[in-house]
This record gives sequence, C-alpha cells and structure tokens, in this order.
Amino acid sequence: MDLDLIRELAIPGDTKIVLAVVDGLGGLEHPETGRSELEAVNTNNLDRLAQDSSCGLTMPVGYGITPGSGPGHLALFGYDPMRYLVGRGVLEALGTDFDLQPQDVAARGNFCTLDDQGRITDRRAGRLATEQNVALCERLRQIELPGVQLFVEPVREHRFVLVLRPTSGNLSDKISETDPQREGASPLPAQPLDDDAKRTAALVNTFVDRARELIKDSSPANGLTLRGFAKHPKMPSFPETFGLRAGAVAVYPMYRGLAKLVGMTVLPTGSTYDDEIATLRDCWNDFDFFFIHYKYADSAGEDGDFDAKMAALEKFDGFVPALRELGADVLMIAGDHSTPAVMAGHSWHGVPFLLSAKNARHDDVDAFNERACLRGALGTFPASEVMPLAMAHAGRLAKYGA
Amino acid sequence: MDLDLIRELAIPGDTKIVLAVVDGLGGLEHPETGRSELEAVNTNNLDRLAQDSSCGLTMPVGYGITPGSGPGHLALFGYDPMRYLVGRGVLEALGTDFDLQPQDVAARGNFCTLDDQGRITDRRAGRLATEQNVALCERLRQIELPGVQLFVEPVREHRFVLVLRPTSGNLSDKISETDPQREGASPLPAQPLDDDAKRTAALVNTFVDRARELIKDSSPANGLTLRGFAKHPKMPSFPETFGLRAGAVAVYPMYRGLAKLVGMTVLPTGSTYDDEIATLRDCWNDFDFFFIHYKYADSAGEDGDFDAKMAALEKFDGFVPALRELGADVLMIAGDHSTPAVMAGHSWHGVPFLLSAKNARHDDVDAFNERACLRGALGTFPASEVMPLAMAHAGRLAKYGA
Repeated sequence: MDLDLIRELAIPGDTKIVLAVVDGLGGLEHPETGRSELEAVNTNNLDRLAQDSSCGLTMPVGYGITPGSGPGHLALFGYDPMRYLVGRGVLEALGTDFDLQPQDVAARGNFCTLDDQGRITDRRAGRLATEQNVALCERLRQIELPGVQLFVEPVREHRFVLVLRPTSGNLSDKISETDPQREGASPLPAQPLDDDAKRTAALVNTFVDRARELIKDSSPANGLTLRGFAKHPKMPSFPETFGLRAGAVAVYPMYRGLAKLVGMTVLPTGSTYDDEIATLRDCWNDFDFFFIHYKYADSAGEDGDFDAKMAALEKFDGFVPALRELGADVLMIAGDHSTPAVMAGHSWHGVPFLLSAKNARHDDVDAFNERACLRGALGTFPASEVMPLAMAHAGRLAKYGA
Repeated sequence: MDLDLIRELAIPGDTKIVLAVVDGLGGLEHPETGRSELEAVNTNNLDRLAQDSSCGLTMPVGYGITPGSGPGHLALFGYDPMRYLVGRGVLEALGTDFDLQPQDVAARGNFCTLDDQGRITDRRAGRLATEQNVALCERLRQIELPGVQLFVEPVREHRFVLVLRPTSGNLSDKISETDPQREGASPLPAQPLDDDAKRTAALVNTFVDRARELIKDSSPANGLTLRGFAKHPKMPSFPETFGLRAGAVAVYPMYRGLAKLVGMTVLPTGSTYDDEIATLRDCWNDFDFFFIHYKYADSAGEDGDFDAKMAALEKFDGFVPALRELGADVLMIAGDHSTPAVMAGHSWHGVPFLLSAKNARHDDVDAFNERACLRGALGTFPASEVMPLAMAHAGRLAKYGA
C-alpha cells in the first residue's frame, strides 16, 4: 500500500500493536517424513493462537525471490522492498550504534581463514570468538589512507563494519564486493561499477592489502572479505507514516539497525528472548508499536540443521503465552523469509503469518504451519501489507473515500 | 486491469450481465456463536447459486483499507479506486438528479442537533423525517451570497446537498469539512486548504452562519454540518470502455449517482427491491449490463444490529430466484465492502462474491459466506477485476496478443 495514503488515513489511538518476527520462520518438508519443521514440532501455543487469529502466508518480495534480511524486514515494516533498498554495510553499521553520516560509505566485513595460496577455507573463520574479532579490529585501526577517515567496528563472531568517511571529495558505494561467496576461491579485488567509484575502489583495495599484512599471522582469522558497500538510504519515517511511537528489541545488531533505519526507537535489552519480552513489558506505556526479533530459527535453518530449527521453533512456542500476556490489541507472528533447513539458506517460499485481534476474521486454521496457513483468511499476500492490516485491526486507519 | 486494454479487447455481443450489489455484504463472527451474519442465516437460494458458480472474496481497495461507498462501487464497476476519487458532495448531488456543472462545488450536508452551547448532541438529528428535511431546505434557499448561485437539495432523512455555482470567478473544492465527526464537539469553520480556496471557504462560512440563524428554533434539527466538498471528476465512460449499454437501478440516491457518474443510464424504479427487479425485467432488451443495488444489509450493519443484518440478508436471499429468472448470461452477487454488525461500520475485510455463467469454473463452495468463499475458484482478488471477469464470461473480450 502506498505509504502516503497510509499517512493520510492514520488516526491516533491508544491501541498497542506487537510484531513478533521469527527470523527464517518458514520451512520445507523433511524428505523422510514429509513434514516441515513447523509441522514436525509441537507448537501447542502457536496452534491455539492460530485458532484465534486470521492466518495466511506472507510473500516477502515476490514469486521466486529470496530475500536478504533487509528486504525481509523492510517489507514487514510496510516498505515496498523493491523500492527501498538498504545495503548490508549500512545495516551493520547502524546495528553497532555507529553514527553514520550521509557521505559515509559502509561495508560489511567478514574475517575468514585463508590457506597458504590465499584461498578461503572457512568464510567465517570458524565463527570467530568475538574477543578475537575485537582485537583484530584494533589492529586494523592502524591503517591510514589519504583523504578519508577510517572506522573499523567489531560486530559479533567473525563480522565487522568498515566505514570510509571522506575528509576531501566524495566517495561512492558503487563498487563490487570482495567476497567470492564460496570456499576454495580467493577474495576478489573491489571493482568500480562506474567512473565515480574509481577512487573509492582503489582506497578499499589499499585497505585490504594493508589489512592482510597486519593479520596474516593470526589464526583462525588471517584474511577478510568486504561486501554490501552502501550509503545511508532515504526512507519515510515509520513513526510519522503510521502515527505510531515504535520501539524495537533485537539481540543481533542488524535487526536493531533495520529498526533504527526506519526511525524506530531501539530499546536496550538483554541477550535472551526472555529479556526482550521483559523490555516490552517495561516500556509498554511508552510505545504504540513494538517490533521484537527472534533469531534462532534462521541460524539453525542456515546451518541446515533440521532438528535444531525444530528446537528453536519449539522454544519460541514456549514464549507465546508471555507474548499474549502483554495484552496487545494486535499481536502478529511473522517471519522475514523462509529458511528451510533442507536448503541451508534463505528461500522464496511463503512465510506463515498470523494476526490476532478482536476484529480479525476467523478461518479454519487450527495449526500454525505452512500447509495450514494456506487455508487462512488472509491467503497468500505481500509482506508489505502486514502494517496496513495491523493498523486496520488496531482501529488506526480512517475510511478511504466517501 | 488497465481500462485502455479492456476498451481495446471489448467485442460486441448479445449476452447480458447482471451485477447485483448487496451493500455491506461481508461480515464478522458474532462473538457468542462464532458465526458471521451470512453463516448464521438461512440462505438456501444463495447457497444453491454458489454451488453452481465460481466463488471468491473481493478486496475493495487494499489490505486493511476500509472503503467508503464511492471507492467500493467504483472498484466493482472496474475503476481502480486508488486512481479515481469521487468526493461525497459530488455523489450526493448526482444522486438527487441534480444537473452538476464542471465549475460547481458540491458538499454533503447533515442536519444535526446542537445543545445550547452549540455542541452536537446528535450528528443525524435522530435521522430526521424526510418531510422535515424538505421544509428546512426550503428555508435555507432564502440565503443569498455574492457571486454565487446556491442550491440546497434535500436527500433522505437528515441528508442534504449544498451546491455553489459561481456567477463570477472560480470556486475551489479544497476546503476542510465542518463536521467534527463526533458528538460533544461543535461544528468547525471551513478552512481553505490552499490560497485559491479562500473565497470559497469564506462563502461557505457565511452560508453556515445564516443557516444557523434560520433554523435555530427548529427541532430536532437546529444545526448543520458540511463535508466532502468536491467537483465533478474526470473518468472514462463505462459504456464506452466495456462496450455495454448499461442500466442502473437503486433506491438510494448515492448509488444512482455513482452509476450516473460513470455514464450508466439510471432507470426510474420504485422503492422496493421487487420494483428494482421488475425494472430490469421491463428494460431487459434495452441494455447489455445491469447494476442493481440492495441497501439494507449495510444499513443494519452500520446500526450494529446483527439480527437485522441477518434478516436483510435472508430477505435478499428470497429475491435470488427472481434474479436468476431474468436469465442473464452472467449473474454476479457482490458487495461494495464488508459492514460487520459487530463493528457497526464499514470494514476492510474481503467480501463474498459469486459469478454464475456457463463457462464459470466450479469449485467446492457449497454455501455463500466468508469462510466458504475463501475456498472458491477465484480466491481473494481485487474488486476492480470483477468487470473483466464478467466480460470474459459473457464472451465479450477478445484474445490478448497473437
């Protein structure tokens, strides 16, 4: 839905909306049992909630399109993911609470393991301990380049952020990534994608050469890749568009970054989902809308671990009563995309969705999974329509036209 | 669907299409029974027709968007309701058979009851008797304003139309409404929304002051509000676009106005649905397409009267055999929007729809209600696709492309 229209129709209220995102929620059948992760696991609480909700399947971007975390979340926040693009570097930078400036170029960095021919043997350096990451970033901060100020910020495990801030002239984010996206290949040089990007590409390649030199004796992380070069995008503000004071809780930085990007207030929280729910409880009166993020279904799916994804979903199911007890007028359980364990990665498949509210139209769905949600009152629909639906059910959208 | 394409593909024929609109058709479950109005009532005739039809749910405007009567009907007539906007004043004026000119500004007026502090105690003056309305409008016609000709036309109950026709200069419809949309507040002054609208706003406020003076001793209607200031919009003609001689019957003026707006011929009819069907029968040979409007499901829903809405639907069901006996090649039962009695107002929820025709693909739907239509052959689809579907089933659309 057009965000200008939503802004026009939005009316104030005292209702509360909770959007609980289970990262990588959707799955696929295990070839031996014919049952998906959600079908195979006991999710009594979700099933009961589904019986009391309008269910459906969200399509994050479009038929056959596998979304990254950025488009997956932006769609759930109401932004057409084909129109609003956010580079990974920007997301990661925002997630570290880095104060990104409009002229900055940010990139997502991964520490990796290289063999003696310079080929990548582990793209994540064994998911490096965060302390080692911090120490490596310290070393990289020694690097100086002409005409730019450099920032190297550790994230978690093997991930860091590189930000180039020009002290003279301009920088461009139109450069290719150095991550070959597979093991057995060497990191690639950054290539300018247009003429304006030549200087930036040269600076990045110089940075990578110096960095390699500085960490070559470290183990397991003796190399690095950079991707997602990006500048801060222009987007309408979520709180202004929907007329909602919006609070966000997430353990992982990228999701906090996405929330911050659209103008939500990122709330300090602990390291568990219990902590996240407690934060919502504590801040309940200060916001109209809460985005709360559960990561572990996606991590397990990405690892191709069917049982671990089942366990992550079962664990989430255990939190559902606490989510319901918050007493939101509109409670939604959604996913940013599917991450089927049998694919060990994100996928394009529709994502189970439910919306519980007083005026939600009931359907015959009595379980929360891919197959059951197909029969839901909401059908299969674009994820970017989740927010208009939430607004309507919260009594926060005026009638359109006479 | 793009209307230019439809116009290109439309081919002549001798088939007949009937679009029977049940205003506010869709509903929601009663909290005690878990059944919607349509589910709770005996609609044997509709159920039998559904078994013989393609069923589905129409979405009038978009996910979460609650349509007014204008967008709801325009969508069923094939017009993208996000693109073609019709102000309420224009609709009401057309519905009184007023000959609206391109330079006119029309507004919908409501007589209301004010307390001695000038605050609204009843926005509809107890749904004033129409005769009293007529007498009040007579009084208001005494008002004279410089540079404009004024028309005050009674509609039904508490509703009237004000039209300002410039005798010199131009008028603008970019002025704010005087209806505060709630009881306990006073009517608002009309505000110009841009510089060109200052003169019109001043004229309207002078009109309101004089009118207040003229009716202040009347009861229960001693005040008035104005909203939906609008000029005649530009739209493609329905008969030319679809190649259909189109006749419309409706008891309430707004729906006749909507039909006239798109170029349908409004047929004189009586005050009952029996009369409306008789009019179709009488004019059967003169038209290819008929729009026939049934209001009472919406009125009962708006009043929040679940039983009355059930009764209105049951009554409509009784007319279905007569509608079938007309012998249309394509018979459709549709709603412009949902009006759940439990919400006492229009809503965004999908609206049950059926299309009966020789080449309609059958589904497993054996009852005409919200839950059953979810499983229909047409799925949940935009209401603005109803006309292309009707044209196709009537054999009136040529193949697209070679």
